[in-house]
Amino acid sequence: MLATALAEARTGLAEGGVPVGAALYGPDGTLLGRGRNLRVQDGDPSLHAETAAFRAAGRQRSYRGTTMVTTLSPCWYCSGLVRQFGISRVVIGEARTFSGGHDWLARHGVEIVLLDDAECVALMRDFVRDHPALWNEDIGAG
Amino acid sequence: MLATALAEARTGLAEGGVPVGAALYGPDGTLLGRGRNLRVQDGDPSLHAETAAFRAAGRQRSYRGTTMVTTLSPCWYCSGLVRQFGISRVVIGEARTFSGGHDWLARHGVEIVLLDDAECVALMRDFVRDHPALWNEDIGAG
Repeated sequence: MLATALAEARTGLAEGGVPVGAALYGPDGTLLGRGRNLRVQDGDPSLHAETAAFRAAGRQRSYRGTTMVTTLSPCWYCSGLVRQFGISRVVIGEARTFSGGHDWLARHGVEIVLLDDAECVALMRDFVRDHPALWNEDIGAG
Repeated sequence: MLATALAEARTGLAEGGVPVGAALYGPDGTLLGRGRNLRVQDGDPSLHAETAAFRAAGRQRSYRGTTMVTTLSPCWYCSGLVRQFGISRVVIGEARTFSGGHDWLARHGVEIVLLDDAECVALMRDFVRDHPALWNEDIGAG
């Protein structure tokens, strides 16, 4: 499942964007939507990877049983999305370079799977090193 | 400040959408962006009123000193947005028909102004009564 999110993150990096990718899967494992951070590409601060994947999945009556896969620990904005819509599980590539709301989600009944994937870590570590201002803008640390 | 958000909510209602509106103001009171829930109109579940206003404001280096005005208590998704990006203040039309994360935001240092506006209450009360399935879909209660 991480492969699709990682592919989105790599595409984002190649486009000059923030290299975070995500994918939303249905209860049966069907891909509902995939996306990547589009702050730079679309000039749109509302499209973090998770919200882009959620948006791509279109309107759904329920998110029960769905899994959000993301290359990076979800920030508060994306954690709020998961909680509000009742997404059941979040699979996270890594939480070393940034740690958002995944512990909070776990306390509120969301299943959290933290992979600590080396490629996800390397992608973000290099990006934060090379583009600190853009990264700070993306997480509201400006 | 509520007038702009209310105008957005009324426009949304006239379009057949979920009647929640929002507006983001800069520290000096300048309108940075305004928007409304666009689930129905754009088939886009990621555009709640607050995220639509945030999106319309475009990329900002900092949200320090900004105010998000919304006709309805912000859900967890929109509360997470406020917390992550460091929006300083949230002015809320009402929290009678739905109560989201505004107490949580207050605990994390966001200034909350709850107006309990009769027109905001009436808009949502009628909408929830007439379109319960759509409302439940919009807050992930399906």
